[in-house]
Amino acid sequence: MKNKITKQSEDFSRWYNDLVLQAELADYSPVKGCMVIRPNGYAIWEKMQAELDRMFKETGHQNAYFPLFIPESFMKKEAEHVKGFAPQCAIVTIGGDKVLEERLYIRPTSETIIYAMYSKWINSYRDLPLLLNQWANVVRWEMRTRLFLRTTEFLWQEGHTAHATHDEAEEETLKILNIYTEFLEKFMAVPVLRGLKTEKEKFAGALRTYCVEAMMRDKKALQAGTSHNLGQNFAKAFDVKFQSREGNMEYVWQTSWGVSTRLIGSLIMVHGDDKGMKIPPRLASTQVVVIPIYRDDSEKQAVLEAAGKLIEKLKTRVSVKLDDRDHYSPGWKFNEWELKGIPLRIEIGPKDVKNQSVIFVRRDTGEKTPVRFDGLEDHAFTTLEDIQDNMYKTALKFRDDNTFEVDDYNEFKEKNKRDGGFFSMYVCDSNKCEIKLQEETKATIRVIPLNPPGGKNGSHKGKCILCNGSSKQRVIVAKAY
Amino acid sequence: MKNKITKQSEDFSRWYNDLVLQAELADYSPVKGCMVIRPNGYAIWEKMQAELDRMFKETGHQNAYFPLFIPESFMKKEAEHVKGFAPQCAIVTIGGDKVLEERLYIRPTSETIIYAMYSKWINSYRDLPLLLNQWANVVRWEMRTRLFLRTTEFLWQEGHTAHATHDEAEEETLKILNIYTEFLEKFMAVPVLRGLKTEKEKFAGALRTYCVEAMMRDKKALQAGTSHNLGQNFAKAFDVKFQSREGNMEYVWQTSWGVSTRLIGSLIMVHGDDKGMKIPPRLASTQVVVIPIYRDDSEKQAVLEAAGKLIEKLKTRVSVKLDDRDHYSPGWKFNEWELKGIPLRIEIGPKDVKNQSVIFVRRDTGEKTPVRFDGLEDHAFTTLEDIQDNMYKTALKFRDDNTFEVDDYNEFKEKNKRDGGFFSMYVCDSNKCEIKLQEETKATIRVIPLNPPGGKNGSHKGKCILCNGSSKQRVIVAKAY
Repeated sequence: MKNKITKQSEDFSRWYNDLVLQAELADYSPVKGCMVIRPNGYAIWEKMQAELDRMFKETGHQNAYFPLFIPESFMKKEAEHVKGFAPQCAIVTIGGDKVLEERLYIRPTSETIIYAMYSKWINSYRDLPLLLNQWANVVRWEMRTRLFLRTTEFLWQEGHTAHATHDEAEEETLKILNIYTEFLEKFMAVPVLRGLKTEKEKFAGALRTYCVEAMMRDKKALQAGTSHNLGQNFAKAFDVKFQSREGNMEYVWQTSWGVSTRLIGSLIMVHGDDKGMKIPPRLASTQVVVIPIYRDDSEKQAVLEAAGKLIEKLKTRVSVKLDDRDHYSPGWKFNEWELKGIPLRIEIGPKDVKNQSVIFVRRDTGEKTPVRFDGLEDHAFTTLEDIQDNMYKTALKFRDDNTFEVDDYNEFKEKNKRDGGFFSMYVCDSNKCEIKLQEETKATIRVIPLNPPGGKNGSHKGKCILCNGSSKQRVIVAKAY
Repeated sequence: MKNKITKQSEDFSRWYNDLVLQAELADYSPVKGCMVIRPNGYAIWEKMQAELDRMFKETGHQNAYFPLFIPESFMKKEAEHVKGFAPQCAIVTIGGDKVLEERLYIRPTSETIIYAMYSKWINSYRDLPLLLNQWANVVRWEMRTRLFLRTTEFLWQEGHTAHATHDEAEEETLKILNIYTEFLEKFMAVPVLRGLKTEKEKFAGALRTYCVEAMMRDKKALQAGTSHNLGQNFAKAFDVKFQSREGNMEYVWQTSWGVSTRLIGSLIMVHGDDKGMKIPPRLASTQVVVIPIYRDDSEKQAVLEAAGKLIEKLKTRVSVKLDDRDHYSPGWKFNEWELKGIPLRIEIGPKDVKNQSVIFVRRDTGEKTPVRFDGLEDHAFTTLEDIQDNMYKTALKFRDDNTFEVDDYNEFKEKNKRDGGFFSMYVCDSNKCEIKLQEETKATIRVIPLNPPGGKNGSHKGKCILCNGSSKQRVIVAKAY
């Protein structure tokens, strides 16, 4: 496989597209804005699903499935929500050869259809909390699409919960934010900043939106997941009430939260390099690839026999694949598996068999190490752990190296334009400053961090970098996907 | 929980709906013809998915995901296919507030959109076989819907493969038929008949359709899964060609196959009784429920302490849940878990604690057995194995008892009307006899069995029960869902 992907330094955006297509993670489909997720990409999504699903279930959530279609009248019940979503919906007007009496929106998100059911199911405080999640496809009509990052149809999970009090809903919102953080950091090896969105950037219909934001290799931010405290907005629109312990009828307090196949895009852009993708070991369906090297049939036999035995041992600790295809050279295979991001490559040739050792080649560092046959499987396992750890640390260092505290607007503008990165700065609450910031710099307030570091005298307060007005704390500003 | 479900003998169809709603497997949604799959129902689907997915992967298949939308022009490329599916499609005509230039069909099945990609991906014999599967939602505009059995939107898996030769495609078609058979029999405890559909009943665009058919408790048939040999029909429509080993350009040979959430409906109707559902142990996310029985606080403490210890032991072999809700009586709980079909109930009261034993109550037979604390977990495990086995045998006996060999049309008509059941009879190949049969009896040819038992002189031939013409073998006729 000739590596023909554009260099990151040359054109990051082309590098990304080249990688996605050539590593066969996804492909363009004949339907405008929709992609096909190919087996290499879908295998990563399955691993992500498995881990997240386990975490959701361990915290008491159950899966369910709600209809793809949302009647137009439902979309219109929550005023902010319809304003935010209706213009980007796909709409079914014909069914079974007839024009429909009521138009059906393809779900862009499922608050409305789900809460219509909640109003039927929830009667008493005994029915609370109701903690449901669904894995589903959603559709948002996008003008400019990018594979995984922004597509008309995408796959995601959306959690929807109902609680008796505001505080329980808030606790749930933060519990999920923590799950997302743990998943991104421990499994995706992606460090994130956690915090609030501004009023302007919050979910249409929410009280407040929390998010996790990560830095890509081009120093732009990507919103990796959101968790919304919906307050009672939807409960009032859909009449979701319960009888409290004291016998009063009250509106429930709700949350919703989601992550999508967009995560695959961030995985690529946080870890990838000019050789291709790097899959963190905990999300790799194939963690180790074994490549036999030989020149003739007698060498082949000896090498394959030894490789076969090693693979049996490796299988007890890691997931492994033998690439014994005859019509590709070892060098071609090295490139292919590097492109696809398999964490660890093991090379074995006739000399290695004689020496009872192999060569380990790490995808994260490129480091080559001879390893004895004896105890090989344990060595592979610990190497993978180390790769996982190192990928996280590398990404964290990159983010830290490219995060700057700034207090002067001109300095920020110049640095943002020249180098990019995350900027920690004071901005006031006004919509005016937020809009001005975006118009003049293309950067936006990504997140108001939780637990900001204390300033002078332990206070977090400062002066808005734009208007010099009062600001409660530093926020993170960056250009974003 | 007051058991309010209609008796099977009174009205099977109402019994089914009552059960689905009251066991909270699914609910009607505000969207006509679409259902909501509630956590109890979805948990069964997840178990089904896990087993089938494992079987598909063990036989070399990979998962992928293709767009929900199919451009109208694609639907029209295969003549039989569009005739069969287009009239029952939901169609998107508006996207992002604009009328679309080309209308988009919501996939009723994905042959067309998938094979458009195959024509891009497949170039050489080295790209074959291509063995993909997707788990997805599909939409077919149905006039008369039934929860799980026939809904406008449903969940399924659809496999799509491409091969170099007819024989390889045929082998794949039968391999999948065997996987479906094994899944239904070993996991769902549902015995099936395997065989071919008639020309009239085959998939729109297929060369031939194989199916698995099961008998419900009302003696009607249900098609549980289909596996199609598509020949080169779609390859020609979508120009899916490959360069053979010899250097010629040839059309690929294809298969497609699927099972859906309909399986949950068949699970209910094969095993359920007047008390509710019976989930086969291998598909039960909760296999054992422990119900503590006590009158006062001191009894409660002793019973819960003993139950807690037993549950720790049980967890090592089976999946178990403790129902320690205080606001329901034990009797109420018995009814609820019987309704929901949990395979094994364990009752433990103060006397049991003293005797160091509990009561096992099997959901399949209702049988009650005292069991000693010591080795309880092994006993639970083997009891579940026995329940799984017994459920299959019971269903098989029911089907055998209600399958009749008939050679006289009037006898068949009368028996079919009075008792129902499966009828093994000779019918010729003509469309005329097949239509007449359906019009006069509401029964249809469900399946032309593989490996039919030999008739006189080892021949399978006989005379058509309708026209006395020549028939190649006995077929199975029944009324169906």
